[in-house]
Amino acid sequence: MNAKKHIDNISSSSTLDMKLKLENMIKNGHQIYKFGIGQSPFPVPENMVFQLSISSHFNSYVSSQGLYELRSQIADFYKKYTITTISPEQIIIGPGSKELLHLVQMVFDCDIIVPNPSWVSYIPQAKINSNNVLLLDTTMDNNWKITTFELEKILKNTNSKKMLILNSPNNPTGQVYTECELINLSKILRKYNTLVLSDEIYSEFSFTEHHSIYKYYPENTIICSGISKFLSAGGWRLGFLIVPNELSYFKNLIINIASETFGSVAHPIQLASIVGFDTNTIQPYTHLCKKILMIISNYIYDKLVENNIMVKKSMGAFYLFPNFNSKLKAINLLNEYNSIQNMKFSFCQWVFTKLLDETGIGVLPGTDFGRPSNELTCRISFVDFDGNLLIKKGQTEIINNNIIQYCPNITEGISNLIKWWNT
Amino acid sequence: MNAKKHIDNISSSSTLDMKLKLENMIKNGHQIYKFGIGQSPFPVPENMVFQLSISSHFNSYVSSQGLYELRSQIADFYKKYTITTISPEQIIIGPGSKELLHLVQMVFDCDIIVPNPSWVSYIPQAKINSNNVLLLDTTMDNNWKITTFELEKILKNTNSKKMLILNSPNNPTGQVYTECELINLSKILRKYNTLVLSDEIYSEFSFTEHHSIYKYYPENTIICSGISKFLSAGGWRLGFLIVPNELSYFKNLIINIASETFGSVAHPIQLASIVGFDTNTIQPYTHLCKKILMIISNYIYDKLVENNIMVKKSMGAFYLFPNFNSKLKAINLLNEYNSIQNMKFSFCQWVFTKLLDETGIGVLPGTDFGRPSNELTCRISFVDFDGNLLIKKGQTEIINNNIIQYCPNITEGISNLIKWWNT
Repeated sequence: MNAKKHIDNISSSSTLDMKLKLENMIKNGHQIYKFGIGQSPFPVPENMVFQLSISSHFNSYVSSQGLYELRSQIADFYKKYTITTISPEQIIIGPGSKELLHLVQMVFDCDIIVPNPSWVSYIPQAKINSNNVLLLDTTMDNNWKITTFELEKILKNTNSKKMLILNSPNNPTGQVYTECELINLSKILRKYNTLVLSDEIYSEFSFTEHHSIYKYYPENTIICSGISKFLSAGGWRLGFLIVPNELSYFKNLIINIASETFGSVAHPIQLASIVGFDTNTIQPYTHLCKKILMIISNYIYDKLVENNIMVKKSMGAFYLFPNFNSKLKAINLLNEYNSIQNMKFSFCQWVFTKLLDETGIGVLPGTDFGRPSNELTCRISFVDFDGNLLIKKGQTEIINNNIIQYCPNITEGISNLIKWWNT
Repeated sequence: MNAKKHIDNISSSSTLDMKLKLENMIKNGHQIYKFGIGQSPFPVPENMVFQLSISSHFNSYVSSQGLYELRSQIADFYKKYTITTISPEQIIIGPGSKELLHLVQMVFDCDIIVPNPSWVSYIPQAKINSNNVLLLDTTMDNNWKITTFELEKILKNTNSKKMLILNSPNNPTGQVYTECELINLSKILRKYNTLVLSDEIYSEFSFTEHHSIYKYYPENTIICSGISKFLSAGGWRLGFLIVPNELSYFKNLIINIASETFGSVAHPIQLASIVGFDTNTIQPYTHLCKKILMIISNYIYDKLVENNIMVKKSMGAFYLFPNFNSKLKAINLLNEYNSIQNMKFSFCQWVFTKLLDETGIGVLPGTDFGRPSNELTCRISFVDFDGNLLIKKGQTEIINNNIIQYCPNITEGISNLIKWWNT
């Protein structure tokens, strides 16, 4: 018996692999700095936890599109990012935004434009769905954002139908598209009638104002988001799509596929998520989380810059994406790498595996996000702190930025990281 | 923009459609007899509900294969159906058995042998995964079971790799394969090196002893099951696969795809499901549920047979699959059907839609399960009763079979169904 060819080369998700690897190292007694995983360090808001505990006896199969009340709440929550009203009919609930991004790729017959670097799962999902991938390179000089020039070049190049995956705030770079940038991109996208899959999972953790391209290009934009990041409920597995009325034919296809695959999202989880989209209740919580993340992000940024490490300031999400190529140590490492026979790793992978083995600092190498093998970029997730403690401390101490003392793994880990590169 | 061709003709799942249709009719004040949906009428066991309520703060991304403790408990629970030990490493947890059946179809490059009639989603899942379907007809005379003769005919017919979907206890027929039948089938399957996807979701609701073909053909059998039926937790969305070590290459591919799509099953749901597989705690609950289902099933069977309706006694699950072709009314209905111009329904669909409109009795037409359009078979689900009440009553009153008085929708609905056919 054989596997289908396009399925045979799908490997396990890098982020989940890193999580398991670090857990194993901890089990074996290693001191670990978990800069490799993108999981919110905060607790799920108390009222959501309470709602789940009192909804635990609900056991019905529910609509594959999702509970109306939840969709209605999300529609209301998201209207701050749009001009036109969003209706509950436009929304689909799924078991995680990852599954929903996959279903969008499953339905459309088109090439997928993936900016480089990008989140680790867009390309594997393209493979699973036999979609052709067009890589759109970005550079640190352009803040890792796609430019209208490069976008137009790729759009006018072939006649195929295309879908652009846009992710702002961005994983892995922490960059955020400005309103002006989105307006300019939408003009090019409209000119070539290109679909946009806008992954806005970090919208509530934008350190600057979040803008959705949906506002400027609603007719061809599908928004994807969920509760994993801003409500710290990654392990609850609930995401949503917002599909414009112009694409309702495809929305119905996605719902039909949902009804033939995962069926619906767990009933108690849906019920408990409703309160998470009640802006008034949730805003104090998300604002505090965001403030804490900003302080930690700026702390790390300053340390890296002080030590001549190339990096752009994080504008959102949990991430910084530094480049270590200019460090002297990079040259010595390259010489060592070139002297090793039968090397199975790329240079980038090898360097950051060595870092992990020698210091316990886990980051994800740039190659996992599509970067070239000789480029020493990596993603630093700044979530290795006690989110429960900081939520409590934060309430009183946040004003004087005095929280970094409660993040020993951040301060020690970054200090050790810099030490390793400086020696 | 176009949809992919093989996706474009996927329609919504019949069972979910029926559920929504009946709910709408109830909203509009109709008296409805819900014989159309396959959802357990019982409450989730109290200890599972309690575990979910105290696990509601858990929010981690967990292993895509599923929590080890849950897999370990399932391995232990299922060993009664096998000779060799099942190890936790063989098990994959997914968001519902439906999603897992889909992933199995996604991975293997083979034709899918689907017995007719069969559960409504096997063939749409084959379409989603571009798999060729080979229908294997069964007859009421053979208790709607596949025969070794017919199986061998289809296996020797072409050289393609094949996977047989076997479902016992069976949806929609309520039939159960005996040990002897499974042994005979396994001999043919081994001869042709055919994969088996054994859907055993109703295993704990077999009114006779449940046997798994895994016991006789372990090297090529993948078992799929979950908590939807015997633990009444359909709305919790948790299923599992048991994959033999011989197929571990494919097991790893399925886990990799899981890591790139749904990621993992909701952490609190996994934690709460562990107690559901503790045989000692759960057996009294499942035995009582099964006893109640048997009594109701036999009641309906007797009524149908008394009225000369062709039907096989249900041996498990929630289902009876009668055929009304021999009723005099069928001839009158056919005449009426033939006189209608521009008919969009098949005869079978039209008859059972008419039944619903005229009497409020909802059943699923045989055509939904693959039966010919002129055959007046339908699936009767006998779950329209108050499972909470019967669990309480059952404890004391079950011995004297005195529970049918507490099932007014069953008694009235079946009485009205028979009346409709007799007039």
